[in-house]
Amino acid sequence: MKIKEVDEAKKIIKELFEELYDEKSINFSIENSYNQVVFSDIISSIDLPPFNRSLMDGFAVKSEDTFRASDESPKILKCIDSIEAGSFSEKTIDNGECIEISTGAPIPDGADAIAMVEFTERKTDEETGNDNIHILKSVAPKQYLAIKGSDMKKDKLILKSKTILSPDKIGVLAGQGIKEIKAFKKPTVAIISTGNELVMNDEEISYGKIYDVNTYSITNATISNGGYGKSYGIVKDNYDDLKEKIESALKTSDIVVCSGGTSAGVGDVLRHVLDEIGEVIIHGVSVKPGKPTIIGKVNEKLVIGLPGNPVSALIIFYVFIVPNLRNLVGLSEEIIEKAIATLAKRIHSPKGRMHYSLVQIKEGLAYPIVKDSGAITSLADADGYIKIPKTTEILEEGKEVEITLFK
Amino acid sequence: MKIKEVDEAKKIIKELFEELYDEKSINFSIENSYNQVVFSDIISSIDLPPFNRSLMDGFAVKSEDTFRASDESPKILKCIDSIEAGSFSEKTIDNGECIEISTGAPIPDGADAIAMVEFTERKTDEETGNDNIHILKSVAPKQYLAIKGSDMKKDKLILKSKTILSPDKIGVLAGQGIKEIKAFKKPTVAIISTGNELVMNDEEISYGKIYDVNTYSITNATISNGGYGKSYGIVKDNYDDLKEKIESALKTSDIVVCSGGTSAGVGDVLRHVLDEIGEVIIHGVSVKPGKPTIIGKVNEKLVIGLPGNPVSALIIFYVFIVPNLRNLVGLSEEIIEKAIATLAKRIHSPKGRMHYSLVQIKEGLAYPIVKDSGAITSLADADGYIKIPKTTEILEEGKEVEITLFK
Repeated sequence: MKIKEVDEAKKIIKELFEELYDEKSINFSIENSYNQVVFSDIISSIDLPPFNRSLMDGFAVKSEDTFRASDESPKILKCIDSIEAGSFSEKTIDNGECIEISTGAPIPDGADAIAMVEFTERKTDEETGNDNIHILKSVAPKQYLAIKGSDMKKDKLILKSKTILSPDKIGVLAGQGIKEIKAFKKPTVAIISTGNELVMNDEEISYGKIYDVNTYSITNATISNGGYGKSYGIVKDNYDDLKEKIESALKTSDIVVCSGGTSAGVGDVLRHVLDEIGEVIIHGVSVKPGKPTIIGKVNEKLVIGLPGNPVSALIIFYVFIVPNLRNLVGLSEEIIEKAIATLAKRIHSPKGRMHYSLVQIKEGLAYPIVKDSGAITSLADADGYIKIPKTTEILEEGKEVEITLFK
Repeated sequence: MKIKEVDEAKKIIKELFEELYDEKSINFSIENSYNQVVFSDIISSIDLPPFNRSLMDGFAVKSEDTFRASDESPKILKCIDSIEAGSFSEKTIDNGECIEISTGAPIPDGADAIAMVEFTERKTDEETGNDNIHILKSVAPKQYLAIKGSDMKKDKLILKSKTILSPDKIGVLAGQGIKEIKAFKKPTVAIISTGNELVMNDEEISYGKIYDVNTYSITNATISNGGYGKSYGIVKDNYDDLKEKIESALKTSDIVVCSGGTSAGVGDVLRHVLDEIGEVIIHGVSVKPGKPTIIGKVNEKLVIGLPGNPVSALIIFYVFIVPNLRNLVGLSEEIIEKAIATLAKRIHSPKGRMHYSLVQIKEGLAYPIVKDSGAITSLADADGYIKIPKTTEILEEGKEVEITLFK
C-alpha cells in the first residue's frame, strides 16, 4: 500500500468520520447537558411568560378606577383576594375592586395594571370591617404587567443548530421546560495500548517494563475534545490477543484507537488483524513523526493505529483525529486553540515529509524542543506543536509560527 | 448594611474565597485527572528510561567485536540468548558473543551497543549447529542505546505548581508511574433556587407556575469553571424551608448558591436565615443588574444569594463568583474567555451604578440586547456581557468593547 501524503490522508480520514455522523436525542438533565452541541434547530414550546405576570408587589386593578388618584384624594378599592407567586385567583375584578398580588403572580381576570404597594395604603372600613385599599397615584393601563408571550412566543426558533450548550443557553432550554433535544452524538472511543513491555500506572514495574503513557494521554485528549474516551488497557503485541481486544472494543465503541504495533517490523500485528476482520484504508503517511499510522474500517466503525512512541502518538492524534472528532460532536475545527509566537531558534526539518515539531512558548517566543522523538521530558516541556511543510528544510529564527496547543 | 461599590465587593469576595483554599491529594486515574490543576511542584519518581533500552531490533554486542566488519569480511558472533520487549536476559555477553534483542528491551550486561538487524545475517554453524550472527557493519559504542535516565532523571522537577493537566502533561505523569498528586481541590457548590412559583423542568407546570432556569444555568456555569456543581432543587420562599435546605446543603458543600428571595420586599428570607445561622458580609451591591446580591458566611463556608431574575443571576455569578472559583481550582482569572468587538449601537447606562449589559456578537460588531432584564430571549441571543463604569452615561457606537463570554 502506497504511503499517503498528509493532505491526502486528512481528506480520506475526514470522509471516514463523516460517515459516522449520527444525531442523538438526549434527555436534558443538569448533568449531561453541559458541552453538548445542538443538532437540529430548537423551537420554543411555550409562551414566556406563560401567563400575564405581575412585575411588582402591589394590587391588581382596573386602571380606569385609579385615574386622578393622589395622596390628597385617594381612590378607594375593595380588596377581594390575595395572590402569592405560584398560585392564582379564580375571582374577577369588577369596578371598585382590587386583588393583592406578589411579584411573579398571574394577573387576575378583570385587572389591566398593577398599583405598586409603595403608592397604596391599607385601611379597614370602620362600618363594614372590610379591607380597603387607598390608591395614592394613578396607574397607566398595562403598568407593571409582563404580558403572556412578550418575552418569547411559542413555536419560534430559539436556538440554532450547532449552538454549544453553554450555561446561558442551558438556561434558555430550562425556562422552556424542554426535556429532550437532538444533540450531536458523542462517539465512544476505545483506547488500547499494545506492547509486551507496558504496564498500567496502578501496577508495579519490574525490570524491562515501562509505564504506559498513551492510554492516559489519548483517553484524556478524547475527552477534552468532545468524545467519550474509555481505556481498554494494555494488550500483548500478538495477533490473537490484539484481535480479541479490538473485537471486544468494537462491540461498545464507535472508534477504536490502538497505539504501538504499527511499524513494519515485528510489531506489524494491527495491519494483519485489520486485513482479516475489516480493511486497511491507510497504512503509512509521509509525516514526521508518525509514518506508520494506520487507518482501518471494520463494519462501518473506525480502527486507528497510532505509533507506540508517546510523542508521535499524541501528535498524530491531534493532527489527524482531533479535528474530525470535534466536527463529529458539532465543535467546529476552528475552535481548536492556537497561539502565535516568534520562533526563537532555527529548526532543521527533513525534506520530503511534513514535519510536526514540539515547541515551548516563553514570553511570546517559541522554543523548538530538540530531543529524541520518544522523550517524555519533551511532553513535560511542550505547549504544543508547529507544522513545517515538506518542502521546507530550514525554518529560520524570527519567523512567526502558529502553535496548536494540546487542549 | 451599606450597599457596596463593585470593586469593594470584589475585594471582599476574593478574600472570602482565599480562605477556602485547600490542596487535595487526588488519585491519578484516567477518569479524574482531566482538567485538574497541579497544586505542588511534581518531582520525578523514577529514571526514564528506567534501564538501558534498545532503540532498534537487532543484536546487543560488544562494539569492539564489530570494528572493521563489512559485507565482505563479517565479524561472526555466537548468539547466546534472545530478549523480547518486556523481558530481560540474565546472561552476560563475553567477547565473541551477542544476544538478539527487540526494540524497547533492556540491554544485557556486557553489551555496549546494538547492531541493527538489517546489517546482520543469521547463519547456522555446520559443525556445532549453533546460531551464528554475521555482523556486516561496524557498530559505534552506545549506538542505538537509550541510556537509563537519559530522558528524565529521578528527583527532578517535571511539572510546576499551577500546571493544568492537559493530555500531554497527563502522559508525563503516567510515564512516571505517578499514582497520586496534590491538586487544587475543586469546591463542591450546592445550587438552590427559591420561589413558590418555580417548578423543575421534569415536572408539569400548572397555571401561575414557571420553569426554573437558575438551577440549570448556575450548576452548569459552576461545572464549566472548575467546580463540582450539584443541584439541590427548588425551595419555597419561606424562612423554615430555606433554612433547612441551606443547612442540609452546607453538610456536603463548600459553597451554597441560592437565587431568588434576596430583594428587600416579601422575599428577604435569605437575609434573615443568614443572620441567624451565620453572618451577612455583603447585602446590596451598587450594580445593575443584581443590586440585592448577598454574600454570607456560615462556619467558614460561603453562602451566596443571587437575584431570582435569570439574566441578573447569571451575570452576577460571572462577575463576582466565576473568577474566584477559577482561582480556587488553580485556573487563573486570565483564562476566562473574552472577545473584542466594536459597539454597533450606543448604550445608555444608569449613572452611579456599575452596569453589565448583554451583547450579541455578529461579524465583529457587538449589538446591545435591549430587553427587560428578565427576558429569557436575551439569554438566547447573548454571547456575553460588557462592563460599563458607573461614571459613564452613554457608551457611543463605534467604541471598542471587551466582552466576557458565558463559558
